[in-house]
Amino acid sequence: MTNAFSFKLRTTDGSARRGAFVTPRGTVQTPAFMPVGTQGTVKGLKPQDVAATGAEIVLGNTYHLMLRPGPERVAALGGLHKFMNWEKPILTDSGGFQVMSLATLRKLSEQAVTFRSHIDGTMFELSPERAIEIQALLGAEISMQLDECLKLPASRDEIERAMRLSLRWAERSRRAFEPRIKDGYALFGIVQGGDDLHLRADSARELVRIGFEGYAIGGLAVGEPQAVMLNVVAETTPQLPADRPRYLMGVGTPHDMLEAVARGIDMFDCVMPTRNGRHGMAFTRFGTVNLSNARHADDPRPLDEESPHLVARTYSRAYLHHLTKANEILGAVLLSTINIAYYQALMAGMRAAIEAGRFADFRAETISRWEQGDIPAR
Amino acid sequence: MTNAFSFKLRTTDGSARRGAFVTPRGTVQTPAFMPVGTQGTVKGLKPQDVAATGAEIVLGNTYHLMLRPGPERVAALGGLHKFMNWEKPILTDSGGFQVMSLATLRKLSEQAVTFRSHIDGTMFELSPERAIEIQALLGAEISMQLDECLKLPASRDEIERAMRLSLRWAERSRRAFEPRIKDGYALFGIVQGGDDLHLRADSARELVRIGFEGYAIGGLAVGEPQAVMLNVVAETTPQLPADRPRYLMGVGTPHDMLEAVARGIDMFDCVMPTRNGRHGMAFTRFGTVNLSNARHADDPRPLDEESPHLVARTYSRAYLHHLTKANEILGAVLLSTINIAYYQALMAGMRAAIEAGRFADFRAETISRWEQGDIPAR
Repeated sequence: MTNAFSFKLRTTDGSARRGAFVTPRGTVQTPAFMPVGTQGTVKGLKPQDVAATGAEIVLGNTYHLMLRPGPERVAALGGLHKFMNWEKPILTDSGGFQVMSLATLRKLSEQAVTFRSHIDGTMFELSPERAIEIQALLGAEISMQLDECLKLPASRDEIERAMRLSLRWAERSRRAFEPRIKDGYALFGIVQGGDDLHLRADSARELVRIGFEGYAIGGLAVGEPQAVMLNVVAETTPQLPADRPRYLMGVGTPHDMLEAVARGIDMFDCVMPTRNGRHGMAFTRFGTVNLSNARHADDPRPLDEESPHLVARTYSRAYLHHLTKANEILGAVLLSTINIAYYQALMAGMRAAIEAGRFADFRAETISRWEQGDIPAR
Repeated sequence: MTNAFSFKLRTTDGSARRGAFVTPRGTVQTPAFMPVGTQGTVKGLKPQDVAATGAEIVLGNTYHLMLRPGPERVAALGGLHKFMNWEKPILTDSGGFQVMSLATLRKLSEQAVTFRSHIDGTMFELSPERAIEIQALLGAEISMQLDECLKLPASRDEIERAMRLSLRWAERSRRAFEPRIKDGYALFGIVQGGDDLHLRADSARELVRIGFEGYAIGGLAVGEPQAVMLNVVAETTPQLPADRPRYLMGVGTPHDMLEAVARGIDMFDCVMPTRNGRHGMAFTRFGTVNLSNARHADDPRPLDEESPHLVARTYSRAYLHHLTKANEILGAVLLSTINIAYYQALMAGMRAAIEAGRFADFRAETISRWEQGDIPAR
């Protein structure tokens, strides 16, 4: 197996890490941002347009794909890569998070969670073993263990109960995943424990004992203050092995990612660049820009004349404003593209800064540029 | 003026014509199909994706653009080409058709039509002179005269009244357009007269007397049977000068276009490829395909393995079905692209067939292929 999953840490700068992981479908440079391909598509973008932003990996959602079109169908069609025409690596989540946020009639047992599809009411059962099976059917290079994602706020007892269940499911996930390891695929464990640092430490220690190709931090970015999230990250990453990638799930804003990399995170995924793009908001080097604002109506400037990405350099703010106001599909397409491209450019900037040993300066300059905001319109 | 508007008829085959027209922004091969860029965007497609279908010209809508973002604004931003990043020729309609179909509180006088915007209720006035001015502000290579588009059915008296008013507006349009001729731009007159062949003949004769760079046939494809439309076309084209392009407005299906070319038409525009694409319908060499039908759910074949266009060759029917069912933006994007590409391929096929003197055979083979339908799924 020449391209079995492996992670190589190239250099560090403070707690920030510059590395890369190898998969059977190619290498991913870290820190990395994974655009979210919820239902087998990064919303609005053709796969080649996703790749042109610089993205080297995308995320697929087990929950959505198990409901529609169904993992057995995707497998019969050649797997998720072929289905969506994306040739590079894919990480799939385990479905735990969406079961909590989207499904109805959830019933949780030691064995599994049963729930009703939010699409057509069909009942489904998701066990740790089935979550692994689905991700194998999809053909993901990186799978995630099934975990229980709590709705917050929750009591400490409830958080601990869910964390302990997630650990037992981690063990079962690992056992179920065993046959895929020899083919070079990776399974990540997920640290849970809410905002309780002792529970987080217990969770991390037990997961490391089980042993995974990578470790995720879950249960954050669910409404808690950024400081709470960053504190959990800062206290958790030192308890994870340095030679495995660390993935902060569902995060986040550019500022979240900058601060999380400063605290030792290597991977992110988030729907913000596409979701906010569909609502007329752009992420840029100059901070966020709300294109629906009338002040852009006569502005001939592109969002960023110096962007490495053609779309961000080309279309005027006036045009993006017009498309947004007119609710044109192309507005969603262009702004989603621009946002993912900015997320990728930010990652590339962090990677270069860590290599150069100037991550602290890059971080300060980037934040200052965001806060200073845009060059005033003429 | 090296690239002033001109039309060259290369060859004919029966009544079918193979030609090309030159504009200041480049040459367009005919028969030509113009994708519709209603609000400054061919819905869902980036301009380079429109060009990649083979389209050499797009249509812009005066009515939509005068309401939002406004022609003076577009002009200040450098014109419609720059605004939407489309470098090739643009034809703009005059707004008459949409005033009738979309605006409310219409009031028609000899001088102009006043109406209320369907977007925000603002009152607008559109005269023949203002329609020409707007199209000049947008920077269209080909402008259309303002005409009165009747809602059908209408009495013969009403059809004649509207046709005569449209002729007087044609005269005023031509006068207003005069200064743009020396810069190589073109103005087309519009033959009206409903399904009355005598009125159509009067309209054509008077327009030819005024003199235009091209002639359109308007007021068709508004619900009448195809046979009625084709009969009006067949009777009208012989009354138009052979050395000017002929444009059948708002048409149509692939079959409409094939039959209209057989009757001497050179140019078409229609929202069907994009609108139907947004609703899960594909136009292909094998006829129309409704991707929302469950029979496509497990079909790994692309819509047309031999399509000259990458998108039609690449994505499986199963994937297009999934995107359609999931109401994903990418489904609208891909199917709109596939449909415009098929329209362009059909035009290219007609052009080659006319050149080869085998248009009748091409027409029969194409219709037979549509009627035979698709190769059965495995």
